[in-house]
Amino acid sequence: GISANHIKLPNTATEADCIASLNGDPAVHGFIVQLPLDSDKPINTEKITNAVAPEKDVDGLSSINAGKLSRGDLGDCFIPCTPKGCMELIRQTGKEVAIHYSLLQYDIEISQSCILKPIDQVAKEVGLLPDEVELYGQTKAKVHLSALKRLKNQPDGKYIVVTGITPTPLGEGKSTTTVGLVQALGAHLHQNVFACVRQPSQGPTFGIKGGAAGGGYCQVIPMEEFNLHLTGDIHAITAANNLVAAAIDTRIFHELTQTDQALYDRLVPSVNGVRKFSGIQIRRLQKLGINKTDPMALTKEEVSLFVRLDIDPGTITWQRVLDTNDRFLRKITIGQSPTEKGFSRTAQFDITVSSEIMAVLALSDGLDDMKKRLGRIVVASSRRGEPVTTDDLGVTGALAVLMKDAVKPNLMQTLEGTPVFVHAGPFANIAHGNSSVLADKIALKLVGEEGFVVTEAGFGADIGMEKFFNIKCRYSGLRPHVVVLVATVRALKMHGGGPAVTAGVPLPKEYMEENLQLLAKGCSNLNKQIQNARMFGVPVVVAVNAFRTDTKAELALVVQLAKEAGAFDAVECTHWAEGGKGAVALAQAVQRASQTPSNFTFLYNVELPVIDKIRLIAQQIYGASDIELLPEAQKKVALYTKQGFGNLPICMAKTHLSLSHDPEKKGAPTGFILPVRDIRASVGAGFLYPLVGTMTTMPGLPTRPCFYDIDLDTVSGEVNGLF
Amino acid sequence: GISANHIKLPNTATEADCIASLNGDPAVHGFIVQLPLDSDKPINTEKITNAVAPEKDVDGLSSINAGKLSRGDLGDCFIPCTPKGCMELIRQTGKEVAIHYSLLQYDIEISQSCILKPIDQVAKEVGLLPDEVELYGQTKAKVHLSALKRLKNQPDGKYIVVTGITPTPLGEGKSTTTVGLVQALGAHLHQNVFACVRQPSQGPTFGIKGGAAGGGYCQVIPMEEFNLHLTGDIHAITAANNLVAAAIDTRIFHELTQTDQALYDRLVPSVNGVRKFSGIQIRRLQKLGINKTDPMALTKEEVSLFVRLDIDPGTITWQRVLDTNDRFLRKITIGQSPTEKGFSRTAQFDITVSSEIMAVLALSDGLDDMKKRLGRIVVASSRRGEPVTTDDLGVTGALAVLMKDAVKPNLMQTLEGTPVFVHAGPFANIAHGNSSVLADKIALKLVGEEGFVVTEAGFGADIGMEKFFNIKCRYSGLRPHVVVLVATVRALKMHGGGPAVTAGVPLPKEYMEENLQLLAKGCSNLNKQIQNARMFGVPVVVAVNAFRTDTKAELALVVQLAKEAGAFDAVECTHWAEGGKGAVALAQAVQRASQTPSNFTFLYNVELPVIDKIRLIAQQIYGASDIELLPEAQKKVALYTKQGFGNLPICMAKTHLSLSHDPEKKGAPTGFILPVRDIRASVGAGFLYPLVGTMTTMPGLPTRPCFYDIDLDTVSGEVNGLF
Repeated sequence: GISANHIKLPNTATEADCIASLNGDPAVHGFIVQLPLDSDKPINTEKITNAVAPEKDVDGLSSINAGKLSRGDLGDCFIPCTPKGCMELIRQTGKEVAIHYSLLQYDIEISQSCILKPIDQVAKEVGLLPDEVELYGQTKAKVHLSALKRLKNQPDGKYIVVTGITPTPLGEGKSTTTVGLVQALGAHLHQNVFACVRQPSQGPTFGIKGGAAGGGYCQVIPMEEFNLHLTGDIHAITAANNLVAAAIDTRIFHELTQTDQALYDRLVPSVNGVRKFSGIQIRRLQKLGINKTDPMALTKEEVSLFVRLDIDPGTITWQRVLDTNDRFLRKITIGQSPTEKGFSRTAQFDITVSSEIMAVLALSDGLDDMKKRLGRIVVASSRRGEPVTTDDLGVTGALAVLMKDAVKPNLMQTLEGTPVFVHAGPFANIAHGNSSVLADKIALKLVGEEGFVVTEAGFGADIGMEKFFNIKCRYSGLRPHVVVLVATVRALKMHGGGPAVTAGVPLPKEYMEENLQLLAKGCSNLNKQIQNARMFGVPVVVAVNAFRTDTKAELALVVQLAKEAGAFDAVECTHWAEGGKGAVALAQAVQRASQTPSNFTFLYNVELPVIDKIRLIAQQIYGASDIELLPEAQKKVALYTKQGFGNLPICMAKTHLSLSHDPEKKGAPTGFILPVRDIRASVGAGFLYPLVGTMTTMPGLPTRPCFYDIDLDTVSGEVNGLF
Repeated sequence: GISANHIKLPNTATEADCIASLNGDPAVHGFIVQLPLDSDKPINTEKITNAVAPEKDVDGLSSINAGKLSRGDLGDCFIPCTPKGCMELIRQTGKEVAIHYSLLQYDIEISQSCILKPIDQVAKEVGLLPDEVELYGQTKAKVHLSALKRLKNQPDGKYIVVTGITPTPLGEGKSTTTVGLVQALGAHLHQNVFACVRQPSQGPTFGIKGGAAGGGYCQVIPMEEFNLHLTGDIHAITAANNLVAAAIDTRIFHELTQTDQALYDRLVPSVNGVRKFSGIQIRRLQKLGINKTDPMALTKEEVSLFVRLDIDPGTITWQRVLDTNDRFLRKITIGQSPTEKGFSRTAQFDITVSSEIMAVLALSDGLDDMKKRLGRIVVASSRRGEPVTTDDLGVTGALAVLMKDAVKPNLMQTLEGTPVFVHAGPFANIAHGNSSVLADKIALKLVGEEGFVVTEAGFGADIGMEKFFNIKCRYSGLRPHVVVLVATVRALKMHGGGPAVTAGVPLPKEYMEENLQLLAKGCSNLNKQIQNARMFGVPVVVAVNAFRTDTKAELALVVQLAKEAGAFDAVECTHWAEGGKGAVALAQAVQRASQTPSNFTFLYNVELPVIDKIRLIAQQIYGASDIELLPEAQKKVALYTKQGFGNLPICMAKTHLSLSHDPEKKGAPTGFILPVRDIRASVGAGFLYPLVGTMTTMPGLPTRPCFYDIDLDTVSGEVNGLF
């Protein structure tokens, strides 16, 4: 029987007719053959793998096949192969097959063509107990933090961080490499392995960027679940974030329209003749230095101090959020209804993943730690210059309740059936851009001492990796064994002086043809990022993510220069097209590197003055000659130091498109002075973030957003058009 | 062993000491006794039930116990009982018990004291197949629509709708009665039964109202799951709603800043030299009467028509939403960032449950129907006066994808282990206020011909029930067998001229003491609502929801007057305090009523002119002498009639606190003229909604919101302070 995915064919056509007609269609790059899997008899994997002779654009797709077949536990088996390979397959196996043919246009088609293991089986395979797992349908599960407690005496596995050189705006494949590396380590080298990746924002899925599940034959699947609601963690953050925002404005409103006594009567009401402080109110009293627990015992002055947060509206740093690309909310005026009595002010909505609560989720190492961080978030200053916290607003408990499920990591799987934690996705500029500490910790226990946890740091190594070390590892106490640095010929040519690379515009010819000169010059960036990684005392393996247009000489040059620059090893990878098979050499290099001693060290001591910490990062990591603090930033250094936040680590908000602050400066610029415009504080998450340039915290929709192509087949329930 | 919930006791105290000390505490109304359940030996239910001699406020709590024990499948058994009953229990069973004592202040304490069946067991009990169920943890599951297809030849069960008289602002217990009735029918009369209830908005949970899971010993559990994220359906609506909003403003922006040709080049880009319309673009062309599929074949005029939705910003009826009580978003100005080039406008945020997408979810009868409704939502008019739809914006497929999981009803359970569908929660004023058609349909198949599905209609019978019949039943094709009309002595006294009843203020003495005169007078409202239900040809059973302060004579009077007014039966109920046992008489009356012939008929034919339909509802249901359309409403009648929406059913947006438009008019007012201020259209959901008065679509937070009491125990993971 034949079933067609994208091209209608007469029902009477035979497989051979079908394939013949598709052979003639230049748009068809490959088929996926659905073979009934006889669970009673073992499948001759080798025979089928040999039958699949990949050609055209689908070189090596059969590796997936091998991976799938060797598992052979789930009914039908899908084998991606070329038209010719497909015919061979029919001839050799003599079985009735269903042929799905695809233009391989969208990653989602690959994702959907694969067989998923039921997620409870994945959970069992990785050693989780049934009562540590909460299923969310068949393909996703939440993992209880109790697993961490149970395994606390288990030694951690090897901890691998994937980062990259300074990228083009198209990205150079860190996510894909993360997935490819675990597919190679797990499905091909049979190691215990876990990938820990960030959950993407849903907004851009419908905008211009598309999803973030990896790509090609290295994906987290099902990618539509990964890219959409998942288990609702981002929605929980939206709810928690906006409860704080509503509490701020409403509190200002109530304070402006009521006397001290009226506020007190409402905040500490008499219930059946008894007045009682709630737990969170007692904490506020203690903070104010009022050691009383009887509401009737407060003096007038104490009542006033207690009831008035006295927020200075001009100091509010807390914004509302939505997980939608809504540019018209970048700057708004709120409170214009007559019910708000004229107390309007300018405000803004950011995209949810930029919320400090997302950074809190990512850095928490347990339920209690999360609640503490949620309670010490600073949302504004009082008119007396004191920080006003979420705990002062009375919302700590409510925030913890809203986030109680979000704190549990989400278990999914790769295309080759290896386990993945998807958990937290903080911005990489105004936040630290790394997936959660908790997912990494649980994964490190689950893989065991000989296993590997591969986690990804956003943006280039100067940003994501620097923050991974100085912020995430500082808070988690975890120590990395290997840095995998992803490089592409395309980005290196750009750094060598190639023309601009722009999303949606065809690549200039420099990128399609061999050009060793541009490439060699651009390796200055690779060299600097290797040094950056080595500065932390961790061995670096360079993954050269090969594109179809890269020549052998180009790839060899990158490998050579990377080694000369001090990389432990440098390896060409083809995992996008081949799946894990294409990253086996990388995986072996990582295995070797993980055996070498790692002498991890932080770049700075948090006790240093704020300005010194910023200068250290700018000079050591970016190559700046010095920094310059603009007046607003100077003011904030003084303010935060006075408020007691001066010893937080630093989270630089800088463009990822250059080692410097200027996205046009490619390669490895030096001698520049890094201007710091302003500094903000994420006290709950636990860092100060200096703003170098302007960061967009609310993306927009283009004229033709992705949603034009996204559709739901209401008969099959399949999602189409995601990428 | 003893464990204390709320009062600390010395660890060395014995059970007897403990109970003795608590006996003396007037604040302690009851205990919950945790008895180790020996799964090998059957428990002597009768003996234990007899030992529990309920007193004080907790009369009859032992019925829960009986229900639980007879199931006896889940480890420890919790028995709520009084101090005396507790001591008896220890004496008679001689077992070691744990005593949790509680002030019974919060519904959540009752909810958490109960034993939950794993939800997959509930699913199995109701006859769902494993592959029709998607677990979301242990206590919630989504049910696939495929169940409906499998059971399509199964006859439907009895369809019971719970509604109420015109309520006080405190509510008269419709949700509690819905849950109590199914607990009685299921756990006590051993019928197949399903409750179908609305999912509450999360916003008010943190504001002033608290949750909506029922109350006392009639709850959907766990109530913290019910009241918070549940399975993310409301979050999905937020995402879908706001994607439409972003698409509207961004489209206006792009049209204002680009030429026809530039728009066309972006909307239908050349990819590898080929231009192609997407499916949704072809639908737009067809709507415009352009029967072309080659993008190169369009004339200049056709290109202009195609690319310009030409939205008139003054006609936009689509608002952004959040599931947060954020009063400062009631009126805002958007687009004030320089990136939006001065195209700012006034807009607003509503609470998510007021989104038309929620009404679409509630009225859809399948995936395909939902997608069609999502695509025909009208968001504005063009400058030419034509309706602009979500399909014109290109978002239909994306909306369907965002809502693909939300369309599946959520399975939970009551305190007594009977099944519940929680699905959709549209506003009862600007929408129709009923839970989903799909949940009702699946439940009616699952209970079988002899079973009962109890569904609830929001507000009083003049609103929720009228819309249940004229909108929900019209679209679903389902026909109700019995109306249960909830009445309270409190509300009837108010209708008889009693003082105002206000949330948060102690009840005046008229409500605490017997007053037959006020009560008899107020039964005018009960009488009118009974007539309203009978107008549709369905038998009415009045449930008199008894409070502690009601006297026997008062309750008897309501029963008598209800019967005289034409009710099939009228029954006193005590389910809040007693669980299902307190609603057994009601359940028996409902059983009898369901055997009588029901001659269901609609109030109006949708083909009537808009104004006639509104007048029919006002005169027949509300008791108005006539209606008056203000100019804006007259304009809209003309507009919608011209746009082809004149034959949609009518969804009145009127106060629920009076049969008239004036909340101060209690009882059964007549002779008034109902003013219709404006009319809006929810074309996707499928109704016009005339605005009678101003509807608040964004609640606020009080000075001391509920969140002050809400907390998470980070050791046990328990949620405290929800109610």
